Formats: sequence, C-alpha cells, structure tokens
Amino acid sequence: MERQSLADLAAKLRTFASERDWDQFHSPKNLVMALSVEVSELMEHFQWLTEEQSSGLPPEKLQQVREEIADVLIYLTRLADKLGVDMLEEAAKKLEVNRGKYPADKVRGSAKKYTEL
Amino acid sequence: MERQSLADLAAKLRTFASERDWDQFHSPKNLVMALSVEVSELMEHFQWLTEEQSSGLPPEKLQQVREEIADVLIYLTRLADKLGVDMLEEAAKKLEVNRGKYPADKVRGSAKKYTEL
Amino acid sequence: MERQSLADLAAKLRTFASERDWDQFHSPKNLVMALSVEVSELMEHFQWLTEEQSSGLPPEKLQQVREEIADVLIYLTRLADKLGVDMLEEAAKKLEVNRGKYPADKVRGSAKKYTEL
Amino acid sequence: MERQSLADLAAKLRTFASERDWDQFHSPKNLVMALSVEVSELMEHFQWLTEEQSSGLPPEKLQQVREEIADVLIYLTRLADKLGVDMLEEAAKKLEVNRGKYPADKVRGSAKKYTEL
Repeated sequence: MERQSLADLAAKLRTFASERDWDQFHSPKNLVMALSVEVSELMEHFQWLTEEQSSGLPPEKLQQVREEIADVLIYLTRLADKLGVDMLEEAAKKLEVNRGKYPADKVRGSAKKYTEL
Repeated sequence: MERQSLADLAAKLRTFASERDWDQFHSPKNLVMALSVEVSELMEHFQWLTEEQSSGLPPEKLQQVREEIADVLIYLTRLADKLGVDMLEEAAKKLEVNRGKYPADKVRGSAKKYTEL
Repeated sequence: MERQSLADLAAKLRTFASERDWDQFHSPKNLVMALSVEVSELMEHFQWLTEEQSSGLPPEKLQQVREEIADVLIYLTRLADKLGVDMLEEAAKKLEVNRGKYPADKVRGSAKKYTEL
Repeated sequence: MERQSLADLAAKLRTFASERDWDQFHSPKNLVMALSVEVSELMEHFQWLTEEQSSGLPPEKLQQVREEIADVLIYLTRLADKLGVDMLEEAAKKLEVNRGKYPADKVRGSAKKYTEL
C-alpha cells in the first residue's frame, strides 16, 4: 500500500460518498454525531480496564481498537473536508497556542492542569 | 508554516508531553476520555442548528469549530501514537472493507444503510 | 409491575452489583465512561434521521430506543448513587437556576440561547 | 423542597419549554445531542483522575459534578418525555433481562463481562 496522506484520504472519502449518492446525509450536524458515536465505540474497549491494562492490550483487542480508530479518523476527515478545514494546519496552530499556555518550565512536575482537583 | 503530516504532528505531541512530564497522565484510557470530551465540545456547536444551518456556518462560529477540530485531531493522534497505530493505513484498509460492504451500484439511490428505519 | 421510584432503582442496582461482586469495577471514572458509551448507543439511532423523522419513530425502532434509554438511566442512577448525589433534588435546583437565567418573557420568540449563531 | 418524582420533573420541563416557546428546538435528534454533550461535561471532571481519586472527590469538585448530573438527568427526562417513554418502567424491565443474562452464581468472581480482554 503506497504512502497515504490526510489529503488523499479526504479525496477518497469524497469519491466514496459521491459514488453512493450519500452526500445528502453528510451534513456537518449528522457527521459530528457519527463521529461522536464512533469515538464511543472506541472508548467502549477501555471502560472497564485499569489504566495499566489499557497500555498493554492483547493483540486481538488491539486489532479491534485499530479498526475503531480508523472509523474515527474517517468521520473526522470527512467532517473537516465538508467544512473546508485543514486539520493539520489547525492542529499545528493549536499546539503553538498550548506551548504559550503551558510553558514547560512552569508546569513540569506540578502538572497543575491535570491534578487540579 | 511548512507542510505538516500526521507523523510530524505525532512527533511534536510526543515532545510536548515529554517536556512537561505529562506522559504519566496519557494512558490510553485517559486519552480516549479526553478525545470523547473534545468531540462533544465540537458537537455542542451543532446541537441546536438545523442540518442546513450546519452547512453554512458564519465565520466566527466556523473559527471556533476549527479550533475544536484541532483538539480532536490532537488527542486522536496522541492516542494512536501511544498505541502504535498507523491511522492512515488503518483508514485506507477500512475504506477497502467498506467498498466491498456497500457496492456503489447496489446502494445508490436506496441508500439503505441510512434509511433503514 | 408495581410503581417504581429512582430510589428503588438505585437500591436494586446496588444489590445487583453486590451479588456479582462487580462493585470493584464501578468506580465513578468507569461508570461515567459506561454512561457516555450508552448515550452514544442511543444517539446512534438518530444520527442519520431528519429532525422530523426523529419525532415519529416506527414502533420497532422506538422499542430499541426505549431499551437504550433504560441503559442510560441505569448507569446514571448507579453513578449518582456511588457519589451520594440525589439527582432529583439537584435537577429541581438546576431548574430554579435556569428559570432565573432564562426569564420566559425575555427569551420567548427570540430564543437567543438557541439561535446565537 | 417537597419530595420530587421523575414524573414531576418531566411535567416541569414541559412547562419550562412551553413558556419559552423552545419546543421547536426539542426534536429527539437535538435532545440526544444535548444529552451527549452534557454527559461529556460530566466526564471531563474525571478524565485525568485515577479511579481511586474519582471515588473521593473533594467537596468543591463534587458540587460541580452534582450540577452536571442534574443537567444530564434534565435532558434525559426531556428526551424520554418527548418520546413517550416511561424510563423507570424500562429500567426495571432491563434489570430483569440482565438478571437472566448474568446469573449471580455464574459470574461472581470471574466477572467475565468485565475482564474479557
């Protein structure tokens, strides 16, 4: 399988929907619901595991998780494409913002964001 | 801003977490919860809109949506990285599976998957 | 079936978990994940429907929806019980707060909360 | 505050929506999205906690959690009311089904449902 990019995936999903005349169902409102449902199908695999167990999934379980992650990426890519959003650019910008918000030398150790009970 | 890839993003997030000693919080169990929460923050923008309104967001709203999509991609990428999953490869495989499951000439028009009330 | 109350349901769920030695899995963290997953199973029934269709479900679909609503209530009740929260009292308080926040004579017609695109 | 029931809450929510002319926004499709968003606001409080921490929330955090639980119950009750579903009856039925599915003497100890990695 040749090397993929997010842009390739978006293009393929566009063709896929168009060939099936499914574009009519792919309003952003519907797509975000589908995205949320797929994330829950992914989350279901982790709900009764301890954190430690979640870091060492057995192969069969990991395979199911892989497939759920694929579904999540598919709906996220489709939604971003319908809205004309460049996800990678937005994520890079957000990461810059977060760098300013959580300076490494200030938050290290304390990790306040996480422990602020 | 130079052209990004998902692999670049994953690497940057790894550094980001490591610099802040946040890896300890990033168990797959916790990351999938965070992913689910971010998707809901995205969904919140659409919950009271009609499908039609959701397809024509005004600029200010679209900007907020862009930022939420960034957060979703960030947590999804981080989770996949922690689990050693190549998301693009998995999505390409899944798309192949779906091609077989929903042949264009069979489902077009009827769109049974969607209308099966 | 005699008339139930939320308190009865909480008590029955407590017994149910205890008889199976499942209390060990029912940390609030795990229960809220399970709750979220159940809500998505409910949401899945609505994701491709128009709003109008969602108001007139055929009997078979409505039956499935009823069962998903039951699952959501079960996990919500279990979570509240583990946290010692009286849900009905909290909901009544919240409704009072909302009455002050959205005075009927101010928001009627404009319904700003909903249309603030 | 006098003793509440779920039926009282449903009736009050009906009046609340009607006084504000908000019924037009309360299609089951929209309400289930709102329910899902509220559950995530609840889940957000737990995402970075250990399971143990989640069982011993400090008072201030617990108060926030109480309010989120109220929001979840409010939207769940509203949705069930719009669909004509008696949640308590459905939950009681479901519990009976689950008793048959997971007999205490079979699942105790092994707790297969939970550990089936």
